[in-house]
Amino acid sequence: MFLELDGVLNGDEIARLRAIAAASRFVDGRVSNPHSEVKNNLQIDPSDAHTEEASKLMAGALFRVEDFRNFAFPRVMAPPILAKYSPGMHYGAHSDAAFLPVGQRPLRSDLSCTLFIGEPGSYDGGELSVRLGGKSVEFKGAAGSAVIYPSNTLHEVRPVASGERLVGLTFIESMIPDGVNRELLYQLNEVAALEGLKMSWDNRTRLEYVRNNLRRMWGEAG
Amino acid sequence: MFLELDGVLNGDEIARLRAIAAASRFVDGRVSNPHSEVKNNLQIDPSDAHTEEASKLMAGALFRVEDFRNFAFPRVMAPPILAKYSPGMHYGAHSDAAFLPVGQRPLRSDLSCTLFIGEPGSYDGGELSVRLGGKSVEFKGAAGSAVIYPSNTLHEVRPVASGERLVGLTFIESMIPDGVNRELLYQLNEVAALEGLKMSWDNRTRLEYVRNNLRRMWGEAG
Amino acid sequence: MFLELDGVLNGDEIARLRAIAAASRFVDGRVSNPHSEVKNNLQIDPSDAHTEEASKLMAGALFRVEDFRNFAFPRVMAPPILAKYSPGMHYGAHSDAAFLPVGQRPLRSDLSCTLFIGEPGSYDGGELSVRLGGKSVEFKGAAGSAVIYPSNTLHEVRPVASGERLVGLTFIESMIPDGVNRELLYQLNEVAALEGLKMSWDNRTRLEYVRNNLRRMWGEAG
Amino acid sequence: MFLELDGVLNGDEIARLRAIAAASRFVDGRVSNPHSEVKNNLQIDPSDAHTEEASKLMAGALFRVEDFRNFAFPRVMAPPILAKYSPGMHYGAHSDAAFLPVGQRPLRSDLSCTLFIGEPGSYDGGELSVRLGGKSVEFKGAAGSAVIYPSNTLHEVRPVASGERLVGLTFIESMIPDGVNRELLYQLNEVAALEGLKMSWDNRTRLEYVRNNLRRMWGEAG
Amino acid sequence: MFLELDGVLNGDEIARLRAIAAASRFVDGRVSNPHSEVKNNLQIDPSDAHTEEASKLMAGALFRVEDFRNFAFPRVMAPPILAKYSPGMHYGAHSDAAFLPVGQRPLRSDLSCTLFIGEPGSYDGGELSVRLGGKSVEFKGAAGSAVIYPSNTLHEVRPVASGERLVGLTFIESMIPDGVNRELLYQLNEVAALEGLKMSWDNRTRLEYVRNNLRRMWGEAG
Amino acid sequence: MFLELDGVLNGDEIARLRAIAAASRFVDGRVSNPHSEVKNNLQIDPSDAHTEEASKLMAGALFRVEDFRNFAFPRVMAPPILAKYSPGMHYGAHSDAAFLPVGQRPLRSDLSCTLFIGEPGSYDGGELSVRLGGKSVEFKGAAGSAVIYPSNTLHEVRPVASGERLVGLTFIESMIPDGVNRELLYQLNEVAALEGLKMSWDNRTRLEYVRNNLRRMWGEAG
Repeated sequence: MFLELDGVLNGDEIARLRAIAAASRFVDGRVSNPHSEVKNNLQIDPSDAHTEEASKLMAGALFRVEDFRNFAFPRVMAPPILAKYSPGMHYGAHSDAAFLPVGQRPLRSDLSCTLFIGEPGSYDGGELSVRLGGKSVEFKGAAGSAVIYPSNTLHEVRPVASGERLVGLTFIESMIPDGVNRELLYQLNEVAALEGLKMSWDNRTRLEYVRNNLRRMWGEAG
Repeated sequence: MFLELDGVLNGDEIARLRAIAAASRFVDGRVSNPHSEVKNNLQIDPSDAHTEEASKLMAGALFRVEDFRNFAFPRVMAPPILAKYSPGMHYGAHSDAAFLPVGQRPLRSDLSCTLFIGEPGSYDGGELSVRLGGKSVEFKGAAGSAVIYPSNTLHEVRPVASGERLVGLTFIESMIPDGVNRELLYQLNEVAALEGLKMSWDNRTRLEYVRNNLRRMWGEAG
Repeated sequence: MFLELDGVLNGDEIARLRAIAAASRFVDGRVSNPHSEVKNNLQIDPSDAHTEEASKLMAGALFRVEDFRNFAFPRVMAPPILAKYSPGMHYGAHSDAAFLPVGQRPLRSDLSCTLFIGEPGSYDGGELSVRLGGKSVEFKGAAGSAVIYPSNTLHEVRPVASGERLVGLTFIESMIPDGVNRELLYQLNEVAALEGLKMSWDNRTRLEYVRNNLRRMWGEAG
Repeated sequence: MFLELDGVLNGDEIARLRAIAAASRFVDGRVSNPHSEVKNNLQIDPSDAHTEEASKLMAGALFRVEDFRNFAFPRVMAPPILAKYSPGMHYGAHSDAAFLPVGQRPLRSDLSCTLFIGEPGSYDGGELSVRLGGKSVEFKGAAGSAVIYPSNTLHEVRPVASGERLVGLTFIESMIPDGVNRELLYQLNEVAALEGLKMSWDNRTRLEYVRNNLRRMWGEAG
Repeated sequence: MFLELDGVLNGDEIARLRAIAAASRFVDGRVSNPHSEVKNNLQIDPSDAHTEEASKLMAGALFRVEDFRNFAFPRVMAPPILAKYSPGMHYGAHSDAAFLPVGQRPLRSDLSCTLFIGEPGSYDGGELSVRLGGKSVEFKGAAGSAVIYPSNTLHEVRPVASGERLVGLTFIESMIPDGVNRELLYQLNEVAALEGLKMSWDNRTRLEYVRNNLRRMWGEAG
Repeated sequence: MFLELDGVLNGDEIARLRAIAAASRFVDGRVSNPHSEVKNNLQIDPSDAHTEEASKLMAGALFRVEDFRNFAFPRVMAPPILAKYSPGMHYGAHSDAAFLPVGQRPLRSDLSCTLFIGEPGSYDGGELSVRLGGKSVEFKGAAGSAVIYPSNTLHEVRPVASGERLVGLTFIESMIPDGVNRELLYQLNEVAALEGLKMSWDNRTRLEYVRNNLRRMWGEAG
């Protein structure tokens, strides 16, 4: 359900993203959710000169990580954007939209991703909190780490009390739309990767047969 | 299931479509259903100079109507075409094809649409009649109005006894393919639009969470 | 898709079933398919004194076989009946009914089973032939063996040219209704049974997690 | 979608039901929907001496009708009850509950049924009106006739202006829960019944193969 | 996803369950999972004189709680059993079986439930820990409280370092098998309960129409 | 399930493909399955001058065959490639990958196809063998013939003992992804094609209504 990844961004990338953030214009986050009463943050101006560079840098870093690809089965990823929370800012409980206007066709948001760019010790509050019914789970990662979580949850960013929270945000359409199916296939693929070479060829073939066919049944072409 | 829309076309558009119809060649409607024994009508010649103008005019008018977009969740719409029924003509009971060759990929026809261009008093007969098991429902709208109905029904156009029936016809592929799902989401969206602002923020968030997730589960990406 | 099982019935059981068949009344097989033009065989009279003994004997023998239970995930099995084909008899291509009136509620026939009771050398013809599109697969097993095949195929019993074909027949409602799902779960369970003990405990736990959840998703309660 | 059936009840049955209605206690219809603000009718007292006789009479009459069985694929039917609308009474727009407490397990209401017992000319108003989006379809049948309609619609009983509306009401759980699937299987079965004997045996076998397998895929066991 | 409930058991019930636990024989928890290498706990002897009393007491307490019924849509619940963890005992990561042999037909375990009977301060360790991918969520409730969690997760009971962990355990088959669907319906029902009376009757009817139909589509009869 | 087609390639095409094979470089088949321990064959070098000509020739020949289109409902076909098995070569049991990188988006392999180019008498062994549980079905067709089989099976090419096996290979993404659905629609379309003209117009319309709607329900747009 959740995937936490350390070291997605290396030191140079972190430095570059911080420099871009420092040099770029940020606008009210409500530009992309005009009717929200709970969104109170800043997003990099889409027309800013460095917006595309930052997106490409973050997208490239994520796709480099094998466990990200294994977990998310990504089909399309929205260009990641930089967001900032100054003291007092927050993003109250909300669920992510089902479809986003990305490129030529809508992207279905199956998974959401936060890339932590600032040091967690440099700001108070600002935890990403995901509700699971009555229970909440909180994330506040090291600089360069990321968390992938299901877009179909209620989640929020707690108020920042001091310092500044600088993150990258993106949304992923998966080849395996259903989250339960995706988790099962991920676990089965892990078993095959870790145990497959020890199996008899017959059983390895059986396991590959199951994995191929689950992917065929659950995966979207198109 | 059915959506009747008044005033889709304004007076100028009605006049322009009538003028185009009067000035254009029409061909046997069997060009698009060569094996039909029950289709007996006329369609504007696809190669006629004004065919595209008429299509764009009608498509634009439909997409202007908010309730059309809310009801149909349109993903792709076939270019609307003009059709004419002279006295004696009719289109016997039939179901619409599942897929139509539109543009680069087949369009799945989830919803069918008739735009009424002539005055209902100017022709006798010519009702669109949709069968619901043993019961039928009939539509003969005012000039400029439209009816949207499920493509998966048996339906017919009753014989025109006198005058001329001039209509626009199109087919819509919806983001929500299943008709029952689409109806539920439409009704839930209506509740949110009409009652959402009166709710506590928590309940409004809950309702938005349900709507986002139903759309995610039921909607087609691609 | 197919499961062939040797030695389902032991020698005593084969002898007892033959003795019952020899001592019992048989009736026209059309009693259970009155409108069939292609069924031409004999079935044991349901009211015969030994019908129930024969059913219990055959059902008990099948349920003894672990691979039968692993493959079929049986939920309910119709009482097996004895059937006979004399020279000239056959059962032309047909598909088995979806639901059979067995006990208090209809049994959905997911899998069909033939138990071979006579020696294959004692009759000419009489092969069970299952069509897979243009290709057919034939079964004529040793006495005491069985074949399990999907009820949703077209299949037939070829004409018996000489001798007598004596078989037991039954139908199984599976806990996993969909045949593709059932096959995948069967193969995955085989992998777990044959390789599980060699895996690290973590991976064995992962594999069990996948199997439990596939069974939960695909299996019918009720 | 709709099935109208004439002559479900014969003259004697109509007379007997009217006599039972005249001799029985009726109670506020809100006994079975205590929170409804739109239900304003009378239902026979469940504890009345003749309630069970009336239920059995109506259930038996419905099950006698072959087209009812073909259309509804009934698995369980709630005991039909008598309901009365005096002048001023009505039942505003509502959808039927998904599950009803009938016998030992909940009955899922897939189809609703109204049996008309009084003469339509003996009361003004009182039409059963089923909404299909913006369009409504109305039913006010002859004495002894019935209408079967989907429980998942919004429907209402229009106010009775004068006279008395006496009807039987019941709910049916179908073996084919999905209404679109049920309609397709019904139509395909009609084709087989009306054309099957004229087909080559091979094609008749193919058609039976399709029907058996659709019923297997779509039908509920349990 | 998770539901934590305070005060499910009152003081008398807690006292009675502790007394039963003190007076009853407990057996190795592997009686119900003979092949487990990670289960190391004690369960009340099924044949003990007070086992049934304890089950009924716990089941009754759970069904008294409205929010439990609203959240779980319970169809069948396994008789809750008492379990004990002495120092050093634990139950390593595992997923619950899909089907349990309860009564006359297998119960599908959709939801698992732990009832906390001992005081949390009376034992060290012993947390119920549910894995959500790489993240875990822990539960160690007050005496009398309960937690409901999805059976399709990997979860464990952490080793008890000192004291004794006394809990009740049960499994619930829900009318809404799919967890995502169940959560959506629960949230929508909450909206209706909290906001319904403030809505216009039309919108309240719409919302009820959606809820009835989601329950019809997603709910299991049988 | 299987479709065998004679005469897909005519004599000229067979001769041309043999000439291309004789003049082209072939590389180790593991280029497209680098981790396979069971693949031991040769494939035409993708960069060879004649690779594209051979692909187009084979694709064109397949699409000419009406029964191929009726059976496969092809949406996308991978460019067919030439493969060779010299003495000793084989391709052990394997299942085909669910998705192949073809063109701009992954192609889901629903059906696999072997085109036989060499004479069956010119090589010993080399049968395509498809496993159906414990039973296998073998194919070794005449030059110019083809076999279409489900990609979700375990299948193998038996060792070639002498001579050379020259075949074309391709993979088809179908508009009807589920194999059982596809088979039912194929059979129903055959009934309509062979019997439709003899039916009453009403029944022909009913049958077309069922076929259109099954195709709409089961077919993928996009």
